Amino acid sequence: MNNIKRILISGGTHGNELTGVQLIRKWKAQPELCEAKAKGIELSTLIANPPAVLAVRRYIDQDLNRSFSLNSLNDTNPSMSVEAHRAKQLNALYGPKGENTQTDLILDIHNTESNMGISLILSEANAFTQRASAEIASEFSGVFIYFQPEERSQSPYLGTLARADVCIEVGPQSHGTLQAGLFEKTEQVVYRFLELAQEWNEGVLQNKPKKKLSVYTHYKDIDYPRDKNNNISAMIHPDLQGQDYVLLEQGSPLFRTFYGEDVLYTEAKTLCPIFINEAAYYEKKIAMTLTSKSIEEW
Amino acid sequence: MNNIKRILISGGTHGNELTGVQLIRKWKAQPELCEAKAKGIELSTLIANPPAVLAVRRYIDQDLNRSFSLNSLNDTNPSMSVEAHRAKQLNALYGPKGENTQTDLILDIHNTESNMGISLILSEANAFTQRASAEIASEFSGVFIYFQPEERSQSPYLGTLARADVCIEVGPQSHGTLQAGLFEKTEQVVYRFLELAQEWNEGVLQNKPKKKLSVYTHYKDIDYPRDKNNNISAMIHPDLQGQDYVLLEQGSPLFRTFYGEDVLYTEAKTLCPIFINEAAYYEKKIAMTLTSKSIEEW
Repeated sequence: MNNIKRILISGGTHGNELTGVQLIRKWKAQPELCEAKAKGIELSTLIANPPAVLAVRRYIDQDLNRSFSLNSLNDTNPSMSVEAHRAKQLNALYGPKGENTQTDLILDIHNTESNMGISLILSEANAFTQRASAEIASEFSGVFIYFQPEERSQSPYLGTLARADVCIEVGPQSHGTLQAGLFEKTEQVVYRFLELAQEWNEGVLQNKPKKKLSVYTHYKDIDYPRDKNNNISAMIHPDLQGQDYVLLEQGSPLFRTFYGEDVLYTEAKTLCPIFINEAAYYEKKIAMTLTSKSIEEW
Repeated sequence: MNNIKRILISGGTHGNELTGVQLIRKWKAQPELCEAKAKGIELSTLIANPPAVLAVRRYIDQDLNRSFSLNSLNDTNPSMSVEAHRAKQLNALYGPKGENTQTDLILDIHNTESNMGISLILSEANAFTQRASAEIASEFSGVFIYFQPEERSQSPYLGTLARADVCIEVGPQSHGTLQAGLFEKTEQVVYRFLELAQEWNEGVLQNKPKKKLSVYTHYKDIDYPRDKNNNISAMIHPDLQGQDYVLLEQGSPLFRTFYGEDVLYTEAKTLCPIFINEAAYYEKKIAMTLTSKSIEEW
């Protein structure tokens, strides 16, 4: 990756995820707080989905953060939803998605109700985002790296409007609420990303020794057990609740049915669950995501 | 209170509070589970706000559980919201609110994101609900009694359609999700209420010795600090988060501003906060409710 000239920091991509919303409001009131950390870099801040923020809902018509594939952006269907329209507007303002984008880096701030601490979600191998994430994961406690490889042109995430991106996923926090500790930690993590972008432009970051760390790579999503009417028939097992990033072994409980029976994890492969019991994923039929843990040098 | 002839158990009064929704679905599929506990009593189960349950939102147009005052029920304004219409329908089915109601007791199951365990909310002094709540609070751990006196005819709560009611408030649980442990405990608490209703009809419950217990009585609600544009300017303090029902003393921290300053509790009166950081109450301008704790014999 060449010099980082323009960075976009976004929040409110989902309107009920308030850490990003309030941080962006703070930085719009005092842009110097961010500018001091990234000298020589052009910074923008963005509330990505204002109608959803106003309604304190994830989205109005469709999930904005599933609206940025090239196919979606090029769809000329005139009956556009609020979010399809907004995605095209953001693509014009900060893209266009692809080689000629105006934006080098997007940091998109999200919340989850799962016990995922600060998870740095990378959707492709990128020299800067890997090095910077590795530094941050080694400096802060409770920061995890989740690698979710995506073909970039068809990836639906806001961050893919830029050459590189990190989705900063912060939890556990109930949607529509704020946790002060998470707000303050997220703020520090974003400042550190900005400092590291400046170090990158100075040629410092790429010459630091790599860090050995745990990387959690997407393996597969798991749905809830369902009855013959396709309604969920079980809940996350009490022993699994909050155990994001903890190794799941064969025979461990996954679910508890409404009639008190346990549903166990039967696969031989040892994996780590994340996004356990995230409200927004009930409609996406995801009870949790399983990841494989590896030790890597980034 | 005379014999309890008809009981209504309701859930989904708020469409994103899933413990009640799933318990009611379970009991509609197997009504004998409840009937076995309350012989000789006519039982009904109700999903109170089906459109909101379908949308997994608290409400569609207005809060259903603020729609049952006599004034609201008698309002003949023809441009009715989904919930104003539903409230009148439920009043016809289970009321009419007042002396001639068909329903002796409503148990209305709710969730909160606050750390309130199972809170039994009583809105008036009533011989049966006080005795039964006292028994349950002494039998189960983590059950609290919150007394919120209301003039019954103008009280806006669904439960006031009946002669007596208990609002069973269950947390902490993020809206739109389920916690298996809370589901199972709530189920047991409802079964115990049904057994105690039968004991009441048999003349047994009213002759048991009273229990000495802690009662938390509504004192006042507290809003978030706000800026000149009326936006919130602070979050629940990290030290206060989750400290529902814990005594709050003068000088204790209440809030943390977005700029890292602490806002303290300055009153001399020692009170207990509840509903700390409940998402649904941001729009109602309630950061927490303060209660006064007393030891009573019920």
